[in-house]
Amino acid sequence: MRLEQLSAAFLMMILAASCAGPGGNGIIQTETPARPAGVESVLGLTVPAMDTVRVGFVGLGMRGADAVSRYTCIPGVKITALCDVEADRVEDSNKRLEAAGFPKAACYSGSTEAYRRLCEREDVDLVYVCTDWKSHVPIALYAMEHGKNVAVEVPAAASLEDIWALVDMSEKTRKHCMMLENCCYDFFEMTVLTMAQKGVLGEIIHGEGSYHHNLDPFWDAYWNNWRLDFNRTHKGDVYPTHGLGPVCQVMGIHRGDRFKTLVAMETGAVNGPKHVEARTGEKCDDFQNGDLTMTMISTEKGRTILVEHDVMTPRPYDRMYQIVGSEGYAGKYPVRQLCLRENAREGAAVDYSDLGGEKIYSGESLDRLMEQYRNPVLTPELEALAREVGGHGGMDFIMDYRLIYCLRNGLPLDMDVYDMAEWCCLTELGKISMENGNAPVEVPDFTRGEWNRLEGFSYAFAEAE
Amino acid sequence: MRLEQLSAAFLMMILAASCAGPGGNGIIQTETPARPAGVESVLGLTVPAMDTVRVGFVGLGMRGADAVSRYTCIPGVKITALCDVEADRVEDSNKRLEAAGFPKAACYSGSTEAYRRLCEREDVDLVYVCTDWKSHVPIALYAMEHGKNVAVEVPAAASLEDIWALVDMSEKTRKHCMMLENCCYDFFEMTVLTMAQKGVLGEIIHGEGSYHHNLDPFWDAYWNNWRLDFNRTHKGDVYPTHGLGPVCQVMGIHRGDRFKTLVAMETGAVNGPKHVEARTGEKCDDFQNGDLTMTMISTEKGRTILVEHDVMTPRPYDRMYQIVGSEGYAGKYPVRQLCLRENAREGAAVDYSDLGGEKIYSGESLDRLMEQYRNPVLTPELEALAREVGGHGGMDFIMDYRLIYCLRNGLPLDMDVYDMAEWCCLTELGKISMENGNAPVEVPDFTRGEWNRLEGFSYAFAEAE
Repeated sequence: MRLEQLSAAFLMMILAASCAGPGGNGIIQTETPARPAGVESVLGLTVPAMDTVRVGFVGLGMRGADAVSRYTCIPGVKITALCDVEADRVEDSNKRLEAAGFPKAACYSGSTEAYRRLCEREDVDLVYVCTDWKSHVPIALYAMEHGKNVAVEVPAAASLEDIWALVDMSEKTRKHCMMLENCCYDFFEMTVLTMAQKGVLGEIIHGEGSYHHNLDPFWDAYWNNWRLDFNRTHKGDVYPTHGLGPVCQVMGIHRGDRFKTLVAMETGAVNGPKHVEARTGEKCDDFQNGDLTMTMISTEKGRTILVEHDVMTPRPYDRMYQIVGSEGYAGKYPVRQLCLRENAREGAAVDYSDLGGEKIYSGESLDRLMEQYRNPVLTPELEALAREVGGHGGMDFIMDYRLIYCLRNGLPLDMDVYDMAEWCCLTELGKISMENGNAPVEVPDFTRGEWNRLEGFSYAFAEAE
Repeated sequence: MRLEQLSAAFLMMILAASCAGPGGNGIIQTETPARPAGVESVLGLTVPAMDTVRVGFVGLGMRGADAVSRYTCIPGVKITALCDVEADRVEDSNKRLEAAGFPKAACYSGSTEAYRRLCEREDVDLVYVCTDWKSHVPIALYAMEHGKNVAVEVPAAASLEDIWALVDMSEKTRKHCMMLENCCYDFFEMTVLTMAQKGVLGEIIHGEGSYHHNLDPFWDAYWNNWRLDFNRTHKGDVYPTHGLGPVCQVMGIHRGDRFKTLVAMETGAVNGPKHVEARTGEKCDDFQNGDLTMTMISTEKGRTILVEHDVMTPRPYDRMYQIVGSEGYAGKYPVRQLCLRENAREGAAVDYSDLGGEKIYSGESLDRLMEQYRNPVLTPELEALAREVGGHGGMDFIMDYRLIYCLRNGLPLDMDVYDMAEWCCLTELGKISMENGNAPVEVPDFTRGEWNRLEGFSYAFAEAE
């Protein structure tokens, strides 16, 4: 081949791989690693039912310590091991166990590798990971490698490499790898999910979610300031899952629909560097994360999703939850609102020549409407217990309860490793988009071909019920 | 040159022109026509002060008829001519004039060309255009060509060709071409603009705006169903200016900052085709506009803007107005909220080591706070009059009042032809983005080099005041 042919072929390769001219497919591709021979997907994965779920906790800071307390309220749980780099945190949690009438758990601390001993124990069925974000993946991988199911705080992973490592490990070991996305268990979101599934909102066309939370008062509460450091060193929406999770359940992502492409855009880093400078006394000119990041996602079925991230500016807390359907709308923050066509609830076939307007439900009228669409998970008994135990108003408890319930009954979990992958991939894919002038980026099919096998999101229940 | 070299050169050309690989500039360019020799920009344009502004109205449907009534309440106005295709509408408006004690105006009707006679009259200083969107541009061009200043309803234009035609004509004739963006005159938005200009919100990093308005009850009210037809035949956000205008004033677009690029994404057309089908009885498979369209804009100064359009789904009316600053936040819909750092208002220098949290103002506390930042245009007298005259709660009247005030005093208008261009260009640029897989598109500098000459948005006032 001549030199000119070589360069033409090279250019053609670039053109095909990462961009094409107007009218073509100008979408940046990322690699989907081949699934190893003999390995199968974990869609609908179950592990044998266990009468008692033996749990080991890794990371006992803000989230972990509260989780230990909540688990003392869940039936069928034995807490066998506790781990944190800081010995006093382990000791505190063990005291909580004792106070709740539970036997003391084995303790691991003193090193960032201490979790390994916990994962190697025989008497652990579930490793519950609440550490800083950077250590999520090595701990989860090590746990699964040692035959444990694993539940990992949000976000489980920030890079495609890490995400694929978790997917591959879950498929290879056939162990659960669930991300602890508590916002999927908030009361409003769960009810809207049920309404959407019953068709009350018509065809779902768009969803929104965000994480708007001014972290000013919290930065220093993170061990060694890891969260600010993570924002400093990572471009992209580093915390996308609270907003995205509930929307994906409504849309049945990898259960009949899938993310196709995304585009991200961010503001400059205005407040981020100031936080670093206030803490180090030195000029910070390498802050990677823009103060606010937006990501737009398109799905195979022609739906769209908007996700935002802003933890840097003084604004009201807002998860911007919105579900837009052809026949109805649900939104939360700053107030809960639900909107239906006047006649939308009467039947499936809508006569568009006779459409008058919409009716907005909020406050008490909303409560009455929503009571008609109770989520099957939310029995009045569970709801009452959840509100009593607490944890972000109850949603943490419901999440934990469902995880243990499914494990005890040998059922598929509500959220699988592919949910984790889809909800976390915004970070690196968004970074790629922004580093290429806000170009569209293809989202990998993390199920590697099975996104259309299931029909919509569903909760599994034991047959007896 | 050999064939292989030719194809390599060709590929390189494509690569450079419309997209580049990762790390490069993958942004679609659009052409900026050269400004004709001898023509200058109309930034800060003034025309000679006129004691009485003689107004001719073209288009007397929903918006036009109300405008005529409002103008009878503005000092220094003479309504000399009225025009509509439908003679009865012209007659109705003339009766309104009479009832208000005004002399009858000359009448033009019976043809879609009737506006020409109005524009050709000697006794018209301002042509006020409230017709369907498709006729805005020919009327505005004809008016300026005949020496008239022109005010055009939103959106003034939908294509880049039309936008440039209006810019060129305004520059050539040195006549005002203002778009009637009333949402820039809503009380909350005007106050937030003042607060932002006084630095209360810190550095402005992001803004949002939208048009969420279920038009089900309104489609048939548009003459010959032109609005539904426009949505059927146009891809892109066809009505972006209500959301965008107030954000652009806060950011000083073409007054120190400018749009750099945009990316758009839309849902499928789900409800749109049903509206056509209900009216024609025939299958509609050529509906261009997605039910919901999102546009993300990046600016030269590293800010971002989000704009949404949804007139198809049953949801609460929402202009999604949000201004996000490094020190404060303002948002409207579904409730008005303003959020400031506890110490943000005390001075310019913020000590980030001492930042506690934010304080949210709403309801009465918000009213009290906002009273301290009264927009200079909104004198208590004008505000009272505006609320009395009405028109979307008063904002229409304030807009009209300002337009006439500036003309009478020979001042630059609040909104110039470049605002019109920037706010309207989302339609075609978004279409280009979406037709190229949501690729980023460069936004032209409609001032052709002068976007950085002025320092921020300002209202002009007569010296005597």
